[in-house]
This record gives sequence, structure tokens and C-alpha cells, in this order.
Amino acid sequence: MNQRRQMHLGVFVLGTGNHIAGWRYPGAAQSFEDLSVVQEIARIAERGRFDLIFLGDNLASEPGMHPSFAARFEPLTMLAALAATTTHVGLGATASTTYNEPYNVARAFASLDHLSGGRAAWNAVTSSGGKAADNFGRIHPEHDARYEVAEEFVDVVRGLWDCWDDGAVIRDHATGRYIDPAKVRPLNHEGRFFRVKGPLPTSRTPQGQPIILQAGSSAPGLALAARTADVVFAVVQDMEEARAGYVALKSRMPGFGRDPATLAVLPGVMPVVGRTEAEARARLNLLQSFVNTDNALAMLSSRLGMDVSGFPLDALVPDLPLPDSSHGFARVMLAKARRERMTWRDLFNLTGAARGHWVICGAPESIADTLQEWFEAEACDGFNILPPYFPGGFADFVDLVVPILQERGLFRREYSGTTLREHLGLARPRSRLFD
Amino acid sequence: MNQRRQMHLGVFVLGTGNHIAGWRYPGAAQSFEDLSVVQEIARIAERGRFDLIFLGDNLASEPGMHPSFAARFEPLTMLAALAATTTHVGLGATASTTYNEPYNVARAFASLDHLSGGRAAWNAVTSSGGKAADNFGRIHPEHDARYEVAEEFVDVVRGLWDCWDDGAVIRDHATGRYIDPAKVRPLNHEGRFFRVKGPLPTSRTPQGQPIILQAGSSAPGLALAARTADVVFAVVQDMEEARAGYVALKSRMPGFGRDPATLAVLPGVMPVVGRTEAEARARLNLLQSFVNTDNALAMLSSRLGMDVSGFPLDALVPDLPLPDSSHGFARVMLAKARRERMTWRDLFNLTGAARGHWVICGAPESIADTLQEWFEAEACDGFNILPPYFPGGFADFVDLVVPILQERGLFRREYSGTTLREHLGLARPRSRLFD
Repeated sequence: MNQRRQMHLGVFVLGTGNHIAGWRYPGAAQSFEDLSVVQEIARIAERGRFDLIFLGDNLASEPGMHPSFAARFEPLTMLAALAATTTHVGLGATASTTYNEPYNVARAFASLDHLSGGRAAWNAVTSSGGKAADNFGRIHPEHDARYEVAEEFVDVVRGLWDCWDDGAVIRDHATGRYIDPAKVRPLNHEGRFFRVKGPLPTSRTPQGQPIILQAGSSAPGLALAARTADVVFAVVQDMEEARAGYVALKSRMPGFGRDPATLAVLPGVMPVVGRTEAEARARLNLLQSFVNTDNALAMLSSRLGMDVSGFPLDALVPDLPLPDSSHGFARVMLAKARRERMTWRDLFNLTGAARGHWVICGAPESIADTLQEWFEAEACDGFNILPPYFPGGFADFVDLVVPILQERGLFRREYSGTTLREHLGLARPRSRLFD
Repeated sequence: MNQRRQMHLGVFVLGTGNHIAGWRYPGAAQSFEDLSVVQEIARIAERGRFDLIFLGDNLASEPGMHPSFAARFEPLTMLAALAATTTHVGLGATASTTYNEPYNVARAFASLDHLSGGRAAWNAVTSSGGKAADNFGRIHPEHDARYEVAEEFVDVVRGLWDCWDDGAVIRDHATGRYIDPAKVRPLNHEGRFFRVKGPLPTSRTPQGQPIILQAGSSAPGLALAARTADVVFAVVQDMEEARAGYVALKSRMPGFGRDPATLAVLPGVMPVVGRTEAEARARLNLLQSFVNTDNALAMLSSRLGMDVSGFPLDALVPDLPLPDSSHGFARVMLAKARRERMTWRDLFNLTGAARGHWVICGAPESIADTLQEWFEAEACDGFNILPPYFPGGFADFVDLVVPILQERGLFRREYSGTTLREHLGLARPRSRLFD
């Protein structure tokens, strides 16, 4: 049983729940601006031996959005706070390659890696929503241009993480030398988009390189992930589609000199768990009954990245051209809507539930069966769990489903390491500048 | 005694000590990349009922620098980690107005204010060291140009903090409305340097406006502080100079419609405390004996912001023109060197000790006497304490000097509030966008 391939599990944290109306569920957390809420979520994640906590981000806010997107902690400060009150779970945060400087991103994640003893992960995104541009006095770049910048941005960040060799901090009391200057080098990057000298004012981190997460599904997104990502979050609705995506991504890796086993693909899934199928179904129905359709078409427009506000809510979703290749959500959702002859209201209900992610509703055994089936079919290497509400919707998964996965030898019973890199089974890399 | 004007105390944290060789002192902390070190410092600060912890920053690193500048945590992530393990002390971090975006700065400090329950403070600096520019592919702007940007940058940040009115998050379970859209507005800033729409994805913070710190001493720096700062850190070596600077700063405030009592001026001071004068002197001598002069002129050049590497170390400091008006340290230090006929070696020893700050060495009573004299002469409103090493050099001040200040009715025995704004005696402002 020890040799069995092991699942990896992440939890996608939105304080009021991943379901848009999660906060209305009896007993659910009411805020994503409350440290005690996210500390409780982190405690449950460690109780469940999860690989990592994952935070998305948005660089714009509108009052009608999902409550946890409208009013939230900034991801890096929130994870730094959790670093001080957790011991094992990985801490992954989103930071945009379009609206940041590589030096600042490299530095913040290096700091988080030190603060957490080696548990930092950076979700590199290019910011698909154009509204961020208005907060930075910019024109939002086109999709492919964003990815050209992202390719260089990721390289600069990883280069900065390599500027300090291990053992550079010597603290020699006899001579008074604190740092060995031979073990610190500038990066001297001069590229198309960035000119960055380095080094960071931060020594080599516990993981050597913090973990790189990505979620892109377009062709440039998959290329970036195949070249640089350690973990990929996928949007899925169908196992065969997921298998095809998994193969497509992993098959690109040898071309970049990488072993496909060094990348974990984790599809997002919202589990609605009951002790029985009927209880689970009743919970999902109760959650859906809380969804307010007043802003349905505006929210759908925002989620799909295209203006659909002119359609009647109860009209069938027509065959629409996609705005650009960046919108994995839009592609998956519109394909599903056409396949299943859904109305905009149906599509909104599905989007409201899990923001376009796969929803799985049932008793613990049946949920575990489905996850095992996907995992063993090599549709994925584990899952990014999107609890509909916190803490109860997450505790149900951890306390009812995880023990079954452990019993079946599919998931760890105890952490065997302390760093996220160790949880993922990845070696700690040497600095390429000193190799 | 209750009516007596009260001192404010901050502590300037560098993990290896403010003294360049502080880490070599027996028992001293060895790293500024160790969470347990900064947690211990924070515990001592709260035991001493300090107003705030203060973190400087640098956006470049060289192995020969002060150890805590060469290898350190990034300030905001470090303070966020401390937010989770402290309850009262204010958390102040430096962020540059030259190498950041106002939206990102506003957001990070708003998040820190939520995480800490109202203890965030932003030290707005323009980054005097030009080496940062090489890490951002930029030409370092001239001093006055940096301050023109800073004036607008601070206004944008404060404007973004005002975009949410109190009570905007309503969480109405009956209607499903989470946010009252009438209480959230965009900023729609369009200025010379920045175009920022807003709002932040963060509701109005516990302090309403996080505290603004500043340390500029040039004419534009004083103007910015007089208009916008709640706390100013001053570089001093002489009480009469400090009094003059205090009056100059406070007298500008009414011109901006501000009450001078709403700004606390805290000069930096390195206390070297012994149970007796002789013990204190022996400690300072021991610290100074650890100073390595190998890189003395390079370090002085960096600290003064001008190249002095061509001078012999034992030559008298000549009468030199100052590079530009931004270098408060250079001005104070070169004036002192000429006044006291110091050599470059003397100047290096002074700079190495406290990086240009005032050093006060003695028994607890005499240190308390001096601090009281400055405070009562209205040379300041309190002090920013720069312990030479941690934790002992700070614990000595807190356990031996603070009780005397408390006994004399000059400093609080207990916190009377929980926010930094309350510690400083400042009212919580209404949002100007909704007033």
C-alpha cells in the first residue's frame, strides 16, 4: 500500500465559501476579512493533512460580486499571518504577472517561504479580468501579450530566488564575516520586458525555490505550465475532457526537459457532502435556494469575460464565439450549456454554485469513489477542494471523505515532511547560478 | 499625573540588532530571517507597552551591508505574521512610493489593518538609495521629482482607504444582500502621475485610515509630513537641533489645517543600558570592538549617499558639499564630524554603532533623565528606540528604563486601547468620500 501513487489535496479558500451564497448557510462563516475564520480553515486543512491552502485573487472590486471577492484580505499578508499559526500546510497565493514587478513578487514569496519554514507557493496568473487595468492606470494587455510577459516574469522571479547559494550566511564570530560574498551573485537579467539586477535582500529559502502554481488553460497557458509549474489547477466538468487535458499538459513536459511526474494536476471540485445522498442533495438544494438572481446576467458577464447582459435570463444559451483563448471557464461552461441545452438561468445557477467548477454531491463513500475513479484513470493527481461554505462544508469533507481515501491507501495519514515541496514529493533544487 | 503629556515609544527592528555588529554580542539573535526572533522582539515590545514596532526597508542587497539589510524578511509579510501572534503593539512597515503602485500599497496595509484589528502603519518613503532602480529597470528619479510623486501617491492611497464607508458590509440574511452598494464608491483619481479607479476589494479598516509614518527631513519631506503624517521619525544628534526641527515641522501643520498635537515626532535613539554607567560603557566598548573596518569607506559611502571611498580612513572629514537635500543622515553626520573634528574612522565608528542615530549610554536612571529632558523641552513626543542587539539590548531598555518612565508618569503602564490610533491618541476618521 505504501508504493501506491498518492493523491495531493489543496483547499481553495474564500472565507464566505466558494458557493456564492455560502455565507447564508446555517452556521457558515460570515467574512473573508476575519483572521479567526481563516485560522480555523487552516486548522481543518492540517487536520486533513492537506498539501496546501490556495488563495485566488482579484485586483478590482464591485459590491455585486461574490462576497469573498468584493471584500477580502490581500493574499500574501493573509498567508503570512497563517504561516505564524500553522506548521505543515502549504501556503499558496495568487500574484499577477501583469500588475506587479518581478522583484517585489520574488521577494514577498521568498519571505513567505522563510516565515513558514518552506511552505510558500506562488500562483502565477496574468489577470484575465480587464478591470484591474483601471486601478493601475494601464490598458489591459491582450491575452497572448500577457503570456509573453508572464514567461519572462516567471524566469526573473526564479532567477532572483537563485541569487543566493545555500550556506551564504556564515555568521563567523571569529572574523566578523556575516555573509560569504562568493555565495551571493546578481542576476543581471536584461530581457524584452524586464531589466532586473538582483540579488534579493533575502537568502536562499527553505524550499530553494518556492512552489509554482498555475491555472491557465489556453495554449500559451499550458506551455507556461508545462515549462515552469509544479502544480496546475484545472477547471473540469467531465472526466474524459479532464483526461485529455491531463495528457495534453504532461506530454509537453519532456520537450522542456521535465519529468511529467514532477507536476501535479489538481482539478477544482466542490464537494457537497451529506451522511446520505438525500442529506447531501438537501444541502445543495438549500444552498441553491439562497442564490439571488438579481444580478445574474451581470455576474455571468463578469465570470465569462463577455457581455451577456442583453439576453433574457430564461432563454437558451446560444452558440457564441468565445472572446479570446484565455477564458477556460467560459469555454468549459458554454460547451456544457450547449451540450445540456441550458438556459442562462441554469448556467447562472451552476456558476453561482461553484463559479464554473465541477460540483459533486453525495454521501462520503460515493464521493470517495468518484475521486478515486478520476485519480486512477489519470484524469488528475489529486484535487483542489472548493468547499461551498466554511468551516462546516470543509470539515465534512475532511472528517467524512478524507478518512476513506486514507483507508484506501490513496492519501497520507500523516505528513512525512514539513515543506510543501516534501508534501509534493519534489526534490529541493540547487541554485542554477551556482551549479 | 493622569493629565501629564504622554511619551510614545516605537522600536526599530533589525533582527541582528541596530548596531552593525550586534549579532556578535554574546547571546544576541543571529538572524533577521527567523520568525521566532521577531516574535520574541514583539513580545518584549508588548511587555513594555510600546506604541509600535517599526520596520525600515531596502530594495537592494549587497553582502557587505549591515547583516539585517543584506538578508531579511520583506516587511509586510513579516508584520502580517506578527499580527497573528500579538494583540496590542502597532505594526509599521516601510513601502516605497517610487517602486510600488498605490493600489497595491493601499491594499496591503488595509489588509494588515484588518488582520491586526487596527494596528497597521505605513512608513511612506521615496527610496533615497539609487540602487533600487537597477532592480526595477528604471532610472532613479531625482529627489524633488520623487517627492512630487510621493505627494500624489499618498493621496491616492488615502483616497482608496476611503472608498468604503463604515457599515457597507450588511450581510442581510433575509434579502441575501451582502454589501450595501450605496456605501462603496470608486475613487476615480486622475492625477499627474497616477490614474486609479478603485475601490479596493477590502472594506473600511478598523482604524478607518491606517497610520502614516514618515522620516523625511528635506524641505519637500517636511512638507509631506506636515500635510499627511501621523508619526515622524527624526534623525538627531543634538537637543537644540532637535527642538528646532520639531518646531519647524509642527509650525507647518496649521497651514494644512492640522492641529500640531496630532503628529508625534519620535527621534531615533540607540540606548546602551547597563546597571551602572561603567557596565553600560563596557557594553558599548565591546560592541565597538566587534566592528570590522574592512569595508568602512564603502559602507560610509552607502550610508551617506556619496562616494567617499577615495579618502584615507584616518584623514579628517573635510568640508564637503552635500549631494542633494534628501540625505538627512549625511547632513547630520557631516555637521557633527566637522563640529567635533572627526576622522573618517571616527565617523564610521559612529555610523556603525547606530547608522547615524543618536547613541545614549548609561545607567537606567540617567537614560530616563535624558529622555525626560528631551521630551519636556519639546524636542520630541517620544522616541524610536534602536536597540543595539536583540533580544537582550531591547529587554534591558524595557525592563530597566521603561519602569522609571512609568513611575514618573511619562509613559503608560497599561494599554488603554487596542488600535495604534488609540495608542497615539488620535480619533478614528470618517471617510471623506461619504462625509
